[in-house]
Amino acid sequence: MGELRKVKCTLSYDGGNYGGYQIQKNSKTVQELLEAAVKEVAGEEITTYASGRTDAGVHAKGQVFHFETVSEISPERWPFALNRLLPKDIVVLSAEFVSEDFHARFDVVEKVYKYCLWNKRIPNLFIRDYCWHVPAPLNLEAMQVAASYLVGEHDFTSFCSFKTKVANRVRHLYEISLEVDAEERIWLTFRGKGFLYNMVRIIVGTLVDVGRGKRTPESVKTILASQDRFLAGKTAPAKGLFLWEVKY
Amino acid sequence: MGELRKVKCTLSYDGGNYGGYQIQKNSKTVQELLEAAVKEVAGEEITTYASGRTDAGVHAKGQVFHFETVSEISPERWPFALNRLLPKDIVVLSAEFVSEDFHARFDVVEKVYKYCLWNKRIPNLFIRDYCWHVPAPLNLEAMQVAASYLVGEHDFTSFCSFKTKVANRVRHLYEISLEVDAEERIWLTFRGKGFLYNMVRIIVGTLVDVGRGKRTPESVKTILASQDRFLAGKTAPAKGLFLWEVKY
Repeated sequence: MGELRKVKCTLSYDGGNYGGYQIQKNSKTVQELLEAAVKEVAGEEITTYASGRTDAGVHAKGQVFHFETVSEISPERWPFALNRLLPKDIVVLSAEFVSEDFHARFDVVEKVYKYCLWNKRIPNLFIRDYCWHVPAPLNLEAMQVAASYLVGEHDFTSFCSFKTKVANRVRHLYEISLEVDAEERIWLTFRGKGFLYNMVRIIVGTLVDVGRGKRTPESVKTILASQDRFLAGKTAPAKGLFLWEVKY
Repeated sequence: MGELRKVKCTLSYDGGNYGGYQIQKNSKTVQELLEAAVKEVAGEEITTYASGRTDAGVHAKGQVFHFETVSEISPERWPFALNRLLPKDIVVLSAEFVSEDFHARFDVVEKVYKYCLWNKRIPNLFIRDYCWHVPAPLNLEAMQVAASYLVGEHDFTSFCSFKTKVANRVRHLYEISLEVDAEERIWLTFRGKGFLYNMVRIIVGTLVDVGRGKRTPESVKTILASQDRFLAGKTAPAKGLFLWEVKY
């Protein structure tokens, strides 16, 4: 056994098979399987700390967590040791030693979420678990204009779940961008320091309404100012959302 | 009921849940579900004819089949009518009326297969059912050189299954190309008029041996000339293979 060291890991998972990231009763969670694997590899009691939770069904391409251990396992070996024990839908991508004052949650500088839309009349079966299929044509320019009104520091009460517990709903969105990739998937990218409960999915639901012509881009300004969740669109499906990257 | 007309359809499916395309005993097949859907929509007995079979686990992005019907359903409606009845892992992409002498199997001018490799030490869980994960580093240049020896008209006895029933194993490969896409997947593209049983997968298995340095590119010439299946590499996993396009 060596000295106590802090390990920071980057993690990907398919949220479709889990009741969310965070341990809870009556539902299989990512954290529960991950923590069991870390304990088994290290051979000691260990608690893991992630950058934040993700909801049931939401995926992660680059979730980050840390833990402390006295084991002598090198950062290069940690991913292989953990992946050997984890199911195929949870994969540790990398690990590194970090200083003792690092904290995966409190030190977050920026989070990047991406949301994937498939906007053809016919579904794409190969990404059926990783996008929201919107068959009606979307006006992407109108969506981009609407999105621009949400960028910056605002009270996002209209764009978070009624279940949101925090009192302060002011958040700073650095960017919302829209791009179509080589395989014709539409990606909405959200960058910000912090996000409220269901915030990205409610914004996506509202932007899709704009894209379909059910709302004007300008209506988004009214919704934002109203601080009323009822005025925004429905919450977009979890399966299109990815926690893409966490920056420190 | 109208006159008898021939309908040509393009079809995609996830081969992972099926015992292959063609109807067989003791295994769920794509053709069986497809034909049941066509019959139900048309309300008559119908036989479907595809461009060819695909093996258990092999995917299709653009399989083609045809059938004859007296129903009045328009080509634009056929995909929606069929997809409503089909499971989510079989999707009809398009349909069109074709002349009465068209045949999905006999009129094939060219088939395109693509094979997907994931060549990082850590797996990519989001494509885990649609690629072969090869963790050891691959020399893509050596693979491309080896592939070039297979392009053209050759007897591919060394590169088809022992179970191959046809006597004539001469086939014309128009192209084998290798490219890395924006998401770092490696795609091997095969173009030819016809392919033998397991031919693409055995070529991929052999090229991966070359890429890993277990064989030289030049050894492929010897394997080809030997007409001996034992000398070629193992059959690559079905889940990385896609019937990409059928040209007429």
